[in-house]
Amino acid sequence: MALLLCITQWEVEPWLERLRRLAPERDIRAWPDVGNPADITYAAVWKQPPGLLASLPNLKGIISLGAGVDHVLSDPTLPNVPLGRVVDDNLTTRMSEWVVMHALIHLRNQNDYYLLQRQKLWREVMPSPAAHELRVGVMGLGVLGVDAIGKLKTMGFDVAGWSRTPKQIEGVKTYAGGELDAFLGRTDLLVSLLPLTPETRGILNRSLFEKLAHDGVLGAPILMNAGRGGLQVEADIISALDEGVLRAATLDVFETEPLPVDNPLWEHPRVTITPHNSAISDEDAVGRFVLRQIERHERGLPFDAPVDAARHY
Amino acid sequence: MALLLCITQWEVEPWLERLRRLAPERDIRAWPDVGNPADITYAAVWKQPPGLLASLPNLKGIISLGAGVDHVLSDPTLPNVPLGRVVDDNLTTRMSEWVVMHALIHLRNQNDYYLLQRQKLWREVMPSPAAHELRVGVMGLGVLGVDAIGKLKTMGFDVAGWSRTPKQIEGVKTYAGGELDAFLGRTDLLVSLLPLTPETRGILNRSLFEKLAHDGVLGAPILMNAGRGGLQVEADIISALDEGVLRAATLDVFETEPLPVDNPLWEHPRVTITPHNSAISDEDAVGRFVLRQIERHERGLPFDAPVDAARHY
Repeated sequence: MALLLCITQWEVEPWLERLRRLAPERDIRAWPDVGNPADITYAAVWKQPPGLLASLPNLKGIISLGAGVDHVLSDPTLPNVPLGRVVDDNLTTRMSEWVVMHALIHLRNQNDYYLLQRQKLWREVMPSPAAHELRVGVMGLGVLGVDAIGKLKTMGFDVAGWSRTPKQIEGVKTYAGGELDAFLGRTDLLVSLLPLTPETRGILNRSLFEKLAHDGVLGAPILMNAGRGGLQVEADIISALDEGVLRAATLDVFETEPLPVDNPLWEHPRVTITPHNSAISDEDAVGRFVLRQIERHERGLPFDAPVDAARHY
Repeated sequence: MALLLCITQWEVEPWLERLRRLAPERDIRAWPDVGNPADITYAAVWKQPPGLLASLPNLKGIISLGAGVDHVLSDPTLPNVPLGRVVDDNLTTRMSEWVVMHALIHLRNQNDYYLLQRQKLWREVMPSPAAHELRVGVMGLGVLGVDAIGKLKTMGFDVAGWSRTPKQIEGVKTYAGGELDAFLGRTDLLVSLLPLTPETRGILNRSLFEKLAHDGVLGAPILMNAGRGGLQVEADIISALDEGVLRAATLDVFETEPLPVDNPLWEHPRVTITPHNSAISDEDAVGRFVLRQIERHERGLPFDAPVDAARHY
């Protein structure tokens, strides 16, 4: 009857301390200090070592500490027990902050104004469209995508959405599945909030960039990706920028993280980089969410946000 | 029966051409080509030469091409005829784009991420609060202030407002007149959208900065001014930044515009400068608005946005 934290690439200590403070009555352990594997009934995971979960004979449930679950499902030996993921209002709000801020930075040419300031140049950057003139397209209409769309709309952007399966959002044109090309063709600024699945891996590639709108008020289209690095083909992003197929890119996620020092994205003049911090969780909120999932499962209830492993989200 | 464009510091030709295209039947002239001063019945003005309007014996009305009218009222010989100003939905939307973008840039430490990118450093900047933890205070609750408040609220900021006279905004705490100190004391990020009047000239000074909240999640408070340059004491802004009384400043307006090359604000590391472009009008929309004001006045109706010269707005 113990909870095991299976965390790599993040510091585990703050998570262990936080969960023990929130639930002092529980037996909470952190890999690699598993103790007797037979004690472990639940696992809270972020990029767990492959095979670790399969070595726990009494495991009843897994909770992903991130909104995405690609980092869990990539383990080929994943045991067939219920899998849940974190859904956190705060995480949603933070993601929309990132999306709206970077969409406005592109709309208002703010990157150019920083450069002009360094040269002490008082000058308007043109073109300078209003939000309603910029067609923003959000790929991925889960909780994050729907929230971002609502806020982009409030700011005045001309917003549409695309998802694998049909979704209705009041007052917003949505596209599904095979309507992808039509969606791309009306999109000046693409915001990717997709989950990483076998279907979406590498979807942000040269062929997709060429299908985006090239007749928009800013000329070439703009890419923003805050989903997962595995969605994007970075060599294609760079060549598309250099050849005018893309105007600019703002990326929070990368094929390899942390982004290696020798990656040319770092110093590309039309690329803005943030260090996978678009949606930072409130760690206390996530800790409470994880404990609530275990309590629900112990009472025979499903997880709040169960994952369908076949769909990969 | 002619309309005179009295414009300095902007190019007059595009305005003349636009208005003539929108109203080919009207006699439209541009200073200094006044012709017979007795022909002029209306004037559309941006920083008119002092004394010019007083030299027009048959002037019936003046329309300011900007939302502010300080540039009109500063003429001591201003004739006592109705004065209207531009209210343009597009101008309001554009101002809110600027306000929300720069508030998010401060919240999300985006200026620091640009510097980190140049150094190829993958690192979180702390503290990294969520929007609800940042108390934003908007000074000036006209059309622009109310719109900005609504959008800041949608993004999750903890927003309040202050204006000279009491104003009600649903779901938002507002302060009026003598409650200024209480308003400042709860404000981490101050957004100035005030009109420039004898009462507000120089209001953004050291004494006011010291009254802002210094116990907020970001430490020292932040100043954003998109009202008028005359509201701010630039020497005080610089000393307050250097002494930790202010954390950062984002300024769209300046005591002297264009901002002189030798002004130290240009290269201050905690100052962001935009070239008085926070609210760029859609020039066609403004042209149509001006013509509608003349038509209204000719039909005996008041201007859509009449200015009370005694209140200066």
